[in-house]
Amino acid sequence: MKIRMVKIDTFRENVIFLRKDSEFCRAQTFSPQTKVELSWNGKTLVGLLNTIDEPFLAKGEVGLCEYAFEKFGLPAGTDVKIRHMDPVKSVDLVRKKIHGEILDEEDYLQIVKDIVENRYSKVELTAFVVACAHGPMEREEVVHLAKAMVETGDVIKWDSEMIVDKHCIGGIPGNRTTMVVVPIVAAYGLLIPKTSSRSITSPAGTADTMDALADVHLDLKKMKEIVSKENGCLGWGGAFTLAPADDIIIAVERPLSIDAQGQMIASILSKKKAAGATHILIDIPVGKSAKVTSPLYANQLKKLFEYVSAKMDMFVDVIITDGSEPIGRGIGPVLEAIDVLKVLKNEKDAPKDLWDKSVELAGRILEFDPKVRGGEGRKIAEEILLSGKAYEKMERIIEAQGRRTLKEPGPLKREIVAYKNGRINEINNQKIAKCAKLAGAPEDAGAGVYLLKRVGEKV
Amino acid sequence: MKIRMVKIDTFRENVIFLRKDSEFCRAQTFSPQTKVELSWNGKTLVGLLNTIDEPFLAKGEVGLCEYAFEKFGLPAGTDVKIRHMDPVKSVDLVRKKIHGEILDEEDYLQIVKDIVENRYSKVELTAFVVACAHGPMEREEVVHLAKAMVETGDVIKWDSEMIVDKHCIGGIPGNRTTMVVVPIVAAYGLLIPKTSSRSITSPAGTADTMDALADVHLDLKKMKEIVSKENGCLGWGGAFTLAPADDIIIAVERPLSIDAQGQMIASILSKKKAAGATHILIDIPVGKSAKVTSPLYANQLKKLFEYVSAKMDMFVDVIITDGSEPIGRGIGPVLEAIDVLKVLKNEKDAPKDLWDKSVELAGRILEFDPKVRGGEGRKIAEEILLSGKAYEKMERIIEAQGRRTLKEPGPLKREIVAYKNGRINEINNQKIAKCAKLAGAPEDAGAGVYLLKRVGEKV
Repeated sequence: MKIRMVKIDTFRENVIFLRKDSEFCRAQTFSPQTKVELSWNGKTLVGLLNTIDEPFLAKGEVGLCEYAFEKFGLPAGTDVKIRHMDPVKSVDLVRKKIHGEILDEEDYLQIVKDIVENRYSKVELTAFVVACAHGPMEREEVVHLAKAMVETGDVIKWDSEMIVDKHCIGGIPGNRTTMVVVPIVAAYGLLIPKTSSRSITSPAGTADTMDALADVHLDLKKMKEIVSKENGCLGWGGAFTLAPADDIIIAVERPLSIDAQGQMIASILSKKKAAGATHILIDIPVGKSAKVTSPLYANQLKKLFEYVSAKMDMFVDVIITDGSEPIGRGIGPVLEAIDVLKVLKNEKDAPKDLWDKSVELAGRILEFDPKVRGGEGRKIAEEILLSGKAYEKMERIIEAQGRRTLKEPGPLKREIVAYKNGRINEINNQKIAKCAKLAGAPEDAGAGVYLLKRVGEKV
Repeated sequence: MKIRMVKIDTFRENVIFLRKDSEFCRAQTFSPQTKVELSWNGKTLVGLLNTIDEPFLAKGEVGLCEYAFEKFGLPAGTDVKIRHMDPVKSVDLVRKKIHGEILDEEDYLQIVKDIVENRYSKVELTAFVVACAHGPMEREEVVHLAKAMVETGDVIKWDSEMIVDKHCIGGIPGNRTTMVVVPIVAAYGLLIPKTSSRSITSPAGTADTMDALADVHLDLKKMKEIVSKENGCLGWGGAFTLAPADDIIIAVERPLSIDAQGQMIASILSKKKAAGATHILIDIPVGKSAKVTSPLYANQLKKLFEYVSAKMDMFVDVIITDGSEPIGRGIGPVLEAIDVLKVLKNEKDAPKDLWDKSVELAGRILEFDPKVRGGEGRKIAEEILLSGKAYEKMERIIEAQGRRTLKEPGPLKREIVAYKNGRINEINNQKIAKCAKLAGAPEDAGAGVYLLKRVGEKV
């Protein structure tokens, strides 16, 4: 059968189309849930079969949806073999998990391998995600899952013993500390090859904000070059295939908005491990409208991060921070970039909270260096920031990645004024994020919300 | 937008296709997981959006997969409105269930309503199924689920106070007692309007076997006519929309082979309730290679059947039977029909176990009649079968439904002989079923396995 791309966007499910009148369909009995395997020269692709009765496939053609076609990576017209796929054995393990059993290292490796090779249908993938989300996973299972995710993807190797990284579990708009922390840490001399995600559900991810200042699409060679010169970079993680199982799992987690502790930790730590990190600072903001609403739960997460990372030969320091309101004033890529530059330049109207949180986090990272005594990190970070060395480093990183001209914020503005006098008691993170998204962020980099007043200020 | 059917078989998922260059796609930002709602004159249809870049849709057309098109039931070219679907609120309840909470009656009704109206994507549906399968549902929850399934479908009403039914939870090849029980019970005078399923995973369902003798596709009017004359019938349940949520749920359960107690019981009892049954005999065969392998588990199921049916104003009698080997000798539609006819005609070589189990079950059903004392049912059933009245009744039912000429068993045969002398110790139900399926049953009605020897016999 000759392959052909069918331009249907199936969102990360390999769908393979065959004419109902094709020989393969006529000769076999199957349900439309049947999976088939295409093979060419040792290369295989597994997909869900959809039988069609439309003329858009010629006789002798097999259609691949866009996602499957790109995954297979063969030119249109390639003559492939087609056969029924053998049952995916690891689905038996998912069933065990559904029934409450604890799976071992080998089990998770098998499951994750099959997921990465696209052998799981969306139904099976969902079953796995939900089975793991229902009741906490044993912490040993989180280790197995994280290790399996690392093993089934690429791993970046560095010529240094200490590679530091930071990660915030998110939920706080404007929280762009990474873009201040990286130049401080890099200026100090630790290696911090930072890759970040684009916005998933928020008005801006670090990669979106950095994108307003420089090219974030770094390949491995370029990233290594920049890091060898500048000690740090600020790239987009999507350019690599680190822990690819995670991206596939997220595709079903997101529509369900499942917030599964074990999976989240496995997801974060596997990406870091694959990126070569040895020391990681994890920021967990706690607040009424943050992702984590109780200090108790934050502490639980902390313990689990510590346990799992140790088993993966990484060191994490978990810091629980104030998540009661947005950080900085700008929310949206350009507005956040402006905040970041003000902080790096130590300008008078730089958002104090962003300045403060950034040196706090950078200080904790500097303490990964055995030469820095506990408690001294913050002072060193402050000195670096105040001296202008961090700004200088950021300029060099931007130059190395490829400078972009920072856009002006969007021209349409509306100032929201209070209808009576008073003092701001509370800002809801989720609602402010929604406003910024409705304004057009992050697709429109100049869109967003600028907070003229913060908690405690008079209006 | 004008609707058009796209002949793609998506297996019970409503998929709606829009051109990427359509105004709707250009004006909106959405992920391909987005659901859209089509509406026409108060009628609505919800489906998962797939964006396409293929010329098979003209501008201004919206494509519906076969399943969605039939569900919508409007002619091609109907001018419909299209809009983003509001988030499905009941998915929040599914999330609660995932996190281990217990849902109430109103929760289940909302979930099942949304499922029946196709508002759930396969991912959400799977999440619900797995969340319910993981750890037993509270028995009150099973009641809620079953009632919600009844409420969201059609219900058949009868002019009689007692409508009896029987159900076997399955797993034993050749177990065609229903086709003997129905004519016995109908000949006695109780109303037994039996609808059965076709084979799902087995070599033959009762509907497949009856299909070898008579037309099983009865509509409601015809079924009522036949039952008013003959007291019983043997139709195919798929002709009605009784508890339609169940069929949708099964579509994801089957590929996962999840065997969830609560869902199974809700599924069976909701179908029976919707069919108007008041008294049901449930047969649970227990055996090493049966669906239920331990008497302990069978007893648990029994209690749950009793509890749930009482809450649904039905009476069940649960009988735990021997499931150690197939029942009768034939496995496959025609071969099983031959066994059934031999039993009804009391022929000398009729399979004794099928004869015996059938009168036992029929006897228990007759005892639903307040006039029959406990323990007397079996004797009455035997008399009816031996007198030929059951056979006569079966002939009348076949005539009423539309007689078919029973096919000969398939012409290609292979006799399997033991390679040494001995006695049969064990027959594996699952392996025998697989052999019969590989031979072509049930698609090929004449295909199957005929057991020349049974457990305990010499070879």
